[in-house]
Amino acid sequence: FIQTVEMELESIEKGGFEHFMLKEIFEQPKSIGDCMRGRLNAETAHIQLGGLINHLEKLAKAKRIVFVACGTSWHAGLVGEYLFEELARINVEVEYASEFRYRNPIIKEGDFVIAISQSGETADTLAALELAKQKGATILGICNVVGSSIARLTDAGVYTHAGPEIGVASTKAFTAQVTVLAMIAIATAKAKGTIDEGEYRRLLSEMAAVPQKVEEILKLDADIKDISKLFTFASNFIFLGRGINFPVALEGALKLKEISYIHAEGYPAAEMKHGPIALIDEDMPVVFIATKDSSYEKVVSNIQEVKARKGRVIAIINHGDTEVKNMVDFAIEIPTSHEMITPLLASIPLQLLSYHIAVLRGRNVDQPRNLAKSVTVE
Amino acid sequence: FIQTVEMELESIEKGGFEHFMLKEIFEQPKSIGDCMRGRLNAETAHIQLGGLINHLEKLAKAKRIVFVACGTSWHAGLVGEYLFEELARINVEVEYASEFRYRNPIIKEGDFVIAISQSGETADTLAALELAKQKGATILGICNVVGSSIARLTDAGVYTHAGPEIGVASTKAFTAQVTVLAMIAIATAKAKGTIDEGEYRRLLSEMAAVPQKVEEILKLDADIKDISKLFTFASNFIFLGRGINFPVALEGALKLKEISYIHAEGYPAAEMKHGPIALIDEDMPVVFIATKDSSYEKVVSNIQEVKARKGRVIAIINHGDTEVKNMVDFAIEIPTSHEMITPLLASIPLQLLSYHIAVLRGRNVDQPRNLAKSVTVE
Repeated sequence: FIQTVEMELESIEKGGFEHFMLKEIFEQPKSIGDCMRGRLNAETAHIQLGGLINHLEKLAKAKRIVFVACGTSWHAGLVGEYLFEELARINVEVEYASEFRYRNPIIKEGDFVIAISQSGETADTLAALELAKQKGATILGICNVVGSSIARLTDAGVYTHAGPEIGVASTKAFTAQVTVLAMIAIATAKAKGTIDEGEYRRLLSEMAAVPQKVEEILKLDADIKDISKLFTFASNFIFLGRGINFPVALEGALKLKEISYIHAEGYPAAEMKHGPIALIDEDMPVVFIATKDSSYEKVVSNIQEVKARKGRVIAIINHGDTEVKNMVDFAIEIPTSHEMITPLLASIPLQLLSYHIAVLRGRNVDQPRNLAKSVTVE
Repeated sequence: FIQTVEMELESIEKGGFEHFMLKEIFEQPKSIGDCMRGRLNAETAHIQLGGLINHLEKLAKAKRIVFVACGTSWHAGLVGEYLFEELARINVEVEYASEFRYRNPIIKEGDFVIAISQSGETADTLAALELAKQKGATILGICNVVGSSIARLTDAGVYTHAGPEIGVASTKAFTAQVTVLAMIAIATAKAKGTIDEGEYRRLLSEMAAVPQKVEEILKLDADIKDISKLFTFASNFIFLGRGINFPVALEGALKLKEISYIHAEGYPAAEMKHGPIALIDEDMPVVFIATKDSSYEKVVSNIQEVKARKGRVIAIINHGDTEVKNMVDFAIEIPTSHEMITPLLASIPLQLLSYHIAVLRGRNVDQPRNLAKSVTVE
């Protein structure tokens, strides 16, 4: 049976916020904390994911993990790819559920197929999972809605516990998905021995510090609102990042598309010179994720290329990075963190940027045109 | 040593065409034919790729193939993914060379890493290949320029023999790359026994028929030029396809971006409803690849969704498909073919569409701003 939760939109408090989306953005210190509560303890250096207890050993031996998802969840899967490959040294493929299910996918023994879906009802993802199950894969689910179809179909799974998400454009569900993926990747890496005790403890304490850092980033809201004004009538946007922040760029672009109807596109920063750079002129705003990680120097040179062509640059940088700050039109400073955890921080200012631009354009941010919260059609 | 071919741009004949790009688009029946000459014989049901003779058996046993490439070559790699997974049942990953090389990739024994690069000098691709070699992968190259750095680094490879490409936006080099990938995939599938004799022969004769079919498609040039007029001042474009034609959509969008500076983006058609559909209104032209393949019915329903939101639709369809023809604003009819070979046909009208729109906008199509033919910087 399907549990139906009846919710009257108006009856749910916006808690003083103008829109559900903004409320949900601001809930993230809590929702990320809720997602880790009882699961991750940095002081005792412990991760325990109830739903995976019987599968962790097998996961550590997996030859391949395939994430199937759509939209924002697909971007969370891409972050997961970087997490699992880097930390647990397991090959990962991230598939559009709608493509995976129609292409007679090659599934071998020992493969894990993990579905990511906020609602747990996404039709394409559900169908992809059913196919993977038939082919003998171990199937797991990362869902927000308890008791959803995907949660019931899977062999095991981890709920994101982000609470109900009302805004059609996903925000807190995305960061909760990434939080779950990071916890699974860290636990798998520990079980597999691909990270040492020091790195393990460092990752746990970095994870534990995320809610406080997100809280800090949210204090930039007024500044980001101010930056948004200049771009209210922009007709295009490009978002660029490298490494684990490449999917953050994709997600930033999708957010802006969904609620402002501005044509925004994400790209891995280094691909720009293979085509998209032709679009760059003084009318093209470009958002860079330029935190001080292993790709930093390369991203700085990509920023210079864009500035040389008169692009307007907004950069997400780490506190105190005067080099990039002096180079760009607008800098948004976020706290430093372990590289593998940056997406949880860097995605927050991009959510706020999209939100404010959309509001300034007079869009219905909670219910953008043409979009449904849960895509239960194929 | 590096062989330098000195070419004076002006001294190379445009052969009566206004631009090198148009000349190269029209050369494709010949360049695709040249690529297959002496290698594929449909009558004797034979494929022989000299460069791979000593590697085909091992390739047939490969657990995983990784394509590393940038830009248009990366799109060819995505087509290759569908070809190898479907025909030879080998798991394929397609990596942006610039991402692959900085992420400490997991390479295992028996893995093949195949670089795709027109010039054979693409800096990121070359570096990715060097890394893969260090990690013990068998490395292959698919290049156009004979004696290039990538060709010299690899254990083996297959030249595309498309002849010199002058236009910065790649056209005939792309279709030659796809031709090579199709030949390798078919030969591997035959060696591995994943396709039967009938299917093998069918594929070879379909391949052999491509030059003639491309010739036919090129006769649509005047019609496509006429369609282009309406979109001269479009500021955005979306390209949609599914399955093996999803990368064709990406490549169609990249072409338009590169030479017209219109912000065009490609997407797998089914992902549209997870975000991009918010962009659709009467100002948004949408190009669909809607050939009669296994995704046809699904694509038709995607077209209906776009039309319901007043998007302007240009569809690439098969001859005689009145269903889609009656539904869309403009239909471009191409010959039918084996599904796995459609990209070689469907990409041609998209090249012409980009070319004509760019010319109507007064762009320098052979040397678009900000772009270099061969990206030898990282």
